[in-house]
Amino acid sequence: MAQRITLTDIAEQAGVSTATVSRVLNGKSNVADETRRQVLAALDVLGYERPESVDNRSRGLVGLIVPELSNPIFPRFAQEIEQLLTPSGHTPVLCTQTPGGVSEDEYIEMLVERGVSGIVFVSGRHADTTGSVTRYQRLRSRGVPLVTLNGNAPMIKAPGFTTDDRAAARMAVEHLANLGHRKIGFATGPARMVPAVRKRAGYEDAMRACCPGEDLRIAESLYTYEGGATAGTALAEQGCTGIICGSDMMALGAIKGIQSTGREVPTDISVIGYDDSPLLAMTHPPLTTVRQPVEAICRAAVSTLLAAINGEKPVDAEMTFIPDLIVRGSTAMAPGIAVLR
Amino acid sequence: MAQRITLTDIAEQAGVSTATVSRVLNGKSNVADETRRQVLAALDVLGYERPESVDNRSRGLVGLIVPELSNPIFPRFAQEIEQLLTPSGHTPVLCTQTPGGVSEDEYIEMLVERGVSGIVFVSGRHADTTGSVTRYQRLRSRGVPLVTLNGNAPMIKAPGFTTDDRAAARMAVEHLANLGHRKIGFATGPARMVPAVRKRAGYEDAMRACCPGEDLRIAESLYTYEGGATAGTALAEQGCTGIICGSDMMALGAIKGIQSTGREVPTDISVIGYDDSPLLAMTHPPLTTVRQPVEAICRAAVSTLLAAINGEKPVDAEMTFIPDLIVRGSTAMAPGIAVLR
Repeated sequence: MAQRITLTDIAEQAGVSTATVSRVLNGKSNVADETRRQVLAALDVLGYERPESVDNRSRGLVGLIVPELSNPIFPRFAQEIEQLLTPSGHTPVLCTQTPGGVSEDEYIEMLVERGVSGIVFVSGRHADTTGSVTRYQRLRSRGVPLVTLNGNAPMIKAPGFTTDDRAAARMAVEHLANLGHRKIGFATGPARMVPAVRKRAGYEDAMRACCPGEDLRIAESLYTYEGGATAGTALAEQGCTGIICGSDMMALGAIKGIQSTGREVPTDISVIGYDDSPLLAMTHPPLTTVRQPVEAICRAAVSTLLAAINGEKPVDAEMTFIPDLIVRGSTAMAPGIAVLR
Repeated sequence: MAQRITLTDIAEQAGVSTATVSRVLNGKSNVADETRRQVLAALDVLGYERPESVDNRSRGLVGLIVPELSNPIFPRFAQEIEQLLTPSGHTPVLCTQTPGGVSEDEYIEMLVERGVSGIVFVSGRHADTTGSVTRYQRLRSRGVPLVTLNGNAPMIKAPGFTTDDRAAARMAVEHLANLGHRKIGFATGPARMVPAVRKRAGYEDAMRACCPGEDLRIAESLYTYEGGATAGTALAEQGCTGIICGSDMMALGAIKGIQSTGREVPTDISVIGYDDSPLLAMTHPPLTTVRQPVEAICRAAVSTLLAAINGEKPVDAEMTFIPDLIVRGSTAMAPGIAVLR
């Protein structure tokens, strides 16, 4: 079964000459860093082992704390951040949480004890309006640079990078209103989390503007498939013809919940997700969703963190990124709307 | 927006009395470990912050090295292993790779330098028949217990846990043959990886048994969506009416590739995946696939690793687990088969 590595394959994949590949594999120093990385990436993509002579030297650990991996948006953030850390030579350490398992604080302690260079927090306690801020203050006072993703509570002092959640909910309501929907419901995660607060504000703004006089229909639940199923069922029974969900996982659950009431998506009820998680385009019906600009967010967060690691003083402000509405098959004209031609 | 934690909510979620919840939250010692974990898990599921007094003490790090996170089966393995490590009090550290980024060897080095208690390798170099075995030998000689998932090459001496890949491919061929297919193709990842070798052997066995005299049609590619698209197109053009894929991601790509040749799934060509990654039931058409028994594999691997960390000498053998064929909508009767009633 053994196959020989051919320099030509690697050179083609890396877009460099075979002579360059050969120099990298033999650990020669007369190769630009970027070129060397391209050759290593080609080896990795083709699944070949790197010769020991070419291994990188690490410049230190960067911790990456995410809530969990079942919602595919978190592996997506993790993969993007790790890819962006690569050229800096830092070793990413991914810390994920499971119910009853290691907590955010325990991971922070473990990372600090092991001399971490910096930490990226994705959807951590910083986004909880009832959370404590001391852990982040303590990190700062110990000189550990940090950045946060997906919403900073008002008291948090740290560079934050987030999708404009208020705009996201507004875009979703406007899309449904343009399709003739008026009874538009909002299935949200726990109200004390910053993204939920902001999405709710966007939903309320847009309902006032697009569907004046219409009731607000809000179902608060968990950001999971099961949470979405509960919220979707409740909103369907309240007569909603359109439902906006706080995450794609919730939206998939909401579709299930709606179907359990004997209604169809999108014929009877339109559903919009949030995140644009990988593989979501392949669901049935393909999910209309608001796409988080993951790459742009991660790029800004990583470059800010690396600058802070290199001694620059970061600005403790939150930077927001505009999402895109991706229209697929789970939204349609409201039932009973006459199309005039 | 702030909400008060109610003891009743937590008690209900944890399935214990409010008095027990109160004892745990106040850091009292007269609570069984398992009960304490249930209460912490309930807090986590409901998204509440744990009081500082109840944080666990870590018993040390366990490294978990996975190839990447874009294929949803790897986050699935990671989440399962982390959940199973929870009761032991170890802190899981997830190390994922990106092309050109930190390699398996660099992660090993980082973990050993930081006093790791043990390492779980998922689809690492141990599964590469052309890979070097020295890294695993060196770990053993340094006294670091390890277990591997998804295939050990013949030279590797370590406790291994894997789906029976040979049986998996055989089940897939038999399912298609029972539906009347004869021209059955096999889209596989790189031939030097152990799971690919085993699946190919199962494919060949079953083709000889079920479709004697029929040509073997094998397209070797990468385990990715794009790899599957290339292989799917090639096999469709060779006249296959059924295609077995080495991963679900390949199968999704194969469906795309097949559609690009003007054929439909499953009307013209049936497609079977492998893994049963999360969310795959929701694709269109819902994917028929061979399910890896992830939980059983992870349970055996984690308990072996923990026993080794506690000083037991592990058995250097590979344990195989039987997969399940999950029949959904991407497979159908072969075209032109008359149904006799």
